[in-house]
Amino acid sequence: MKKKPRIISTKQVARSRLFCVEEISLEFSNGVARIYERMVAGKNGAVMIIALTEKQELILIREYSAGTDDYQLAFPKGLIDAGETPLEAANRELKEEAGYGARELEQLKVISLAPGYFSHQMNIIFARNLYEEKLEGDEPEPLDVVLWPFNKINELLTLEDFTESRSIAGLMLVHQYLAKQDN
Amino acid sequence: MKKKPRIISTKQVARSRLFCVEEISLEFSNGVARIYERMVAGKNGAVMIIALTEKQELILIREYSAGTDDYQLAFPKGLIDAGETPLEAANRELKEEAGYGARELEQLKVISLAPGYFSHQMNIIFARNLYEEKLEGDEPEPLDVVLWPFNKINELLTLEDFTESRSIAGLMLVHQYLAKQDN
Repeated sequence: MKKKPRIISTKQVARSRLFCVEEISLEFSNGVARIYERMVAGKNGAVMIIALTEKQELILIREYSAGTDDYQLAFPKGLIDAGETPLEAANRELKEEAGYGARELEQLKVISLAPGYFSHQMNIIFARNLYEEKLEGDEPEPLDVVLWPFNKINELLTLEDFTESRSIAGLMLVHQYLAKQDN
Repeated sequence: MKKKPRIISTKQVARSRLFCVEEISLEFSNGVARIYERMVAGKNGAVMIIALTEKQELILIREYSAGTDDYQLAFPKGLIDAGETPLEAANRELKEEAGYGARELEQLKVISLAPGYFSHQMNIIFARNLYEEKLEGDEPEPLDVVLWPFNKINELLTLEDFTESRSIAGLMLVHQYLAKQDN
């Protein structure tokens, strides 16, 4: 394993309400110096919930996405509040965004967004044994909840509004998890 | 389908060498007004290359990631240069980062990063029929190239340094693509 680069210095170079950009000055173990930029995320991390109904349907949300200026289909997700565990946050977000709670919640993996540039961490949570419960969220308009048969993942992957890397990564993790259980 | 929110105004609120943050003022079709922030990416987009050797091994790169301050295993990737097609960029990046060219390149899907906040688009390219060719890249230190048997995806997914959402999403896309071909 290579020795990690030494961080010589870091400084904040841009900041907005949501985003904070740091410049970091690095020296690699071979002596090469570089200046990189990275975005620093909040400390608590986030959750994405892949919930499966009794009928083996995935629960998806269709929501306006400002970054791409379109409606995107993705799994429910949100930030972990201070004092919450990832599983508690997952159940809350599932109730707020989709109108379901879960009696079984399991963390499959913590994934990163684009680790070269972002410190963000997302806990992928698999939820089953669901019940109906709606909590009030802070969405500007009601979210569309879409149920999608798990055995039609192929078709889901071809949809032009199902593009989010973390949702597709989540599918991979659940797919492998369930395949392992079947063996 | 819901009517898209109307963008009332946009303004740049933060900028660094790499990142540009815009504030957008929106009115949803139900009349609710919101102010969002989003990061604006370069226009050409990016590519990620999932290359499979003749021995059915995936080609991975181990590289220092400043966002998470650790070494991460991920598929080769990079920005599309002006005038390049996504497939040309994919072949160039594969040569620069991994030391291989490909005679067969196929675009599987264009995925987004976190579409609520980022406009970034990543072309997932599947590469086969490889040959050895090294192009000079701009890496500060030599990249480790790791060959991983495709039939050991399960183990790959459990590695603590294989966390990148786009790489895991890419695995899902290749997995489904090959499963379809087998049927």
